[in-house]
Amino acid sequence: MRGLHLDCGILTLRDDLPEPESRTDWTRVQVAVAGICATDRALARGYLDFRGVPGHEFVGTALDGPLQGRRVVGEINAGCGACGACATGDSRHCAQRTVLGIAGLQGALAERLALPTANLLVVPDAVDDEAATFTEPLAAALHVADDVDLAAHSRALVAGDGKLGLLCAMALQLHGCEVTLAGRHPERAALLRRPPAFARGWLEAVPAERGPADHFDLAVEATGDPTVLARLLPLVRPRGTIVLKTTAEQPAEIDLGPFVVRELRLVGSRCGRFRPALDALAGGLVDARGLVSARYPLGDGVAAFQHAAEPGVLEVLVRCTA
Amino acid sequence: MRGLHLDCGILTLRDDLPEPESRTDWTRVQVAVAGICATDRALARGYLDFRGVPGHEFVGTALDGPLQGRRVVGEINAGCGACGACATGDSRHCAQRTVLGIAGLQGALAERLALPTANLLVVPDAVDDEAATFTEPLAAALHVADDVDLAAHSRALVAGDGKLGLLCAMALQLHGCEVTLAGRHPERAALLRRPPAFARGWLEAVPAERGPADHFDLAVEATGDPTVLARLLPLVRPRGTIVLKTTAEQPAEIDLGPFVVRELRLVGSRCGRFRPALDALAGGLVDARGLVSARYPLGDGVAAFQHAAEPGVLEVLVRCTA
Repeated sequence: MRGLHLDCGILTLRDDLPEPESRTDWTRVQVAVAGICATDRALARGYLDFRGVPGHEFVGTALDGPLQGRRVVGEINAGCGACGACATGDSRHCAQRTVLGIAGLQGALAERLALPTANLLVVPDAVDDEAATFTEPLAAALHVADDVDLAAHSRALVAGDGKLGLLCAMALQLHGCEVTLAGRHPERAALLRRPPAFARGWLEAVPAERGPADHFDLAVEATGDPTVLARLLPLVRPRGTIVLKTTAEQPAEIDLGPFVVRELRLVGSRCGRFRPALDALAGGLVDARGLVSARYPLGDGVAAFQHAAEPGVLEVLVRCTA
Repeated sequence: MRGLHLDCGILTLRDDLPEPESRTDWTRVQVAVAGICATDRALARGYLDFRGVPGHEFVGTALDGPLQGRRVVGEINAGCGACGACATGDSRHCAQRTVLGIAGLQGALAERLALPTANLLVVPDAVDDEAATFTEPLAAALHVADDVDLAAHSRALVAGDGKLGLLCAMALQLHGCEVTLAGRHPERAALLRRPPAFARGWLEAVPAERGPADHFDLAVEATGDPTVLARLLPLVRPRGTIVLKTTAEQPAEIDLGPFVVRELRLVGSRCGRFRPALDALAGGLVDARGLVSARYPLGDGVAAFQHAAEPGVLEVLVRCTA
């Protein structure tokens, strides 16, 4: 089959990729549309030494199994099914897990993929293909509410105005937070139904301006720049929380003193549950379609990756089935 | 009056120190015994540029005010009394606070000190002077329970077998945790009523042995070595918690990736409430007296500091009133 393929950081379009295997309790999916996110671009730079088909944001049609013919999205962590984490339904922390297009499992930037049937959710008619590709990052954004008592963290700063930052801002607004967005693109605040306050320069290495000390109950790091964390510390009130929403490819030098003296909390946050994200999309609570910067056919997938890496680009979508 | 004095990292014994001022709503205290802790030794190395009388672990007798003549210990953060933090009774996070022997307030390693009267607690007869000097560090150790749901974190690792580590291990046992203590002095496990499992070598830069991956729900960093945090990450289960209980004098290079991928939580934890600590000491729930390595009169206070800095020494106490 046709798909994109990564090998030692080299991305190619191939027509000879093996079809995903048919396995008990798994379902094969014909991919309609897949997105290219920052993690995919990091993989293409060599992050995690990934080899194979990248891509984990997708919508498609189930080709077999109980959902055959239905339009589906799918949670990306495929657990072993036997460990304690899997027993509680949370394959996100199965130590043996594979992860779609990220670790040990061929991804979505191809004509077909396979996932455990239990990972798949039928997409409501109210959610079109492009919106459905945002289920995965929106689930990750909404997951902040699983880890932080947002009722006690009403003043929130989102650091980063890329796709994930914007989705986090939307998610926090859904939970009643008063959101300030910090980044480089003030015009992006208008992509939210309720445009948040926008702060420019707070995240720069030599800040042109500084945020108000101790002002925020919560800060969400969504830039992927490991040096930003240190700049968030003084902006968060004592006993406030910083959520790390993005992985950085490099370690950072951090002075842990303020964490202790100001009793801050740092919460790592990764994948979320798809059901609340699909519900939010279906109910029109979140409109992610304004985040699409460009659309490519799978045959131009390498160009799509190049486009996604350009400054100022939000989401690039790839149509995988003609 | 007589007392120890720090100036640009030079510690001297002086007989010409000014008496603490008499202030409305403050009480002067004749210090009976004061302890020398790791923070005091760091101040003596120049940490925080502290000048004045160090010392914040003490017991003494109130010289005036409503507690005159009573034996007291005292919370070390003196708030402004007017801000939001102070209004909720938590001067620990008042932005204008002074801190006894640490920031802007003359400390306990002298004949007399002064603190807000509201900071003082009467010491029950069942707690002798030496045990009472452990109220402050025990309060800090018990404070972990204010910040972490210990019922959901039953398997706990305490990193560091110094005084604070041992008190944290005692405090966690009081809350029902199954504690493993990691350090260099296996014999110290016997200082606890219920000796915990002891792990040697887990915290070394090139570990002779490694702890079991994903085993602990909670790890408490009580070494003060900023490089230890990275070694704790793999020992804590996904979605587990690491409490930073000690400030480090230097920044550390940290790979934040595992925080996100494994959804770990880092919780900074500083000063605790004195009441539960005094209750635990009075009830015989915690016996801290085994932690005393040496006793000095105030006149030998400089030698006491030197002794406290020697390897393998736990608490050094200074009798400030003959």
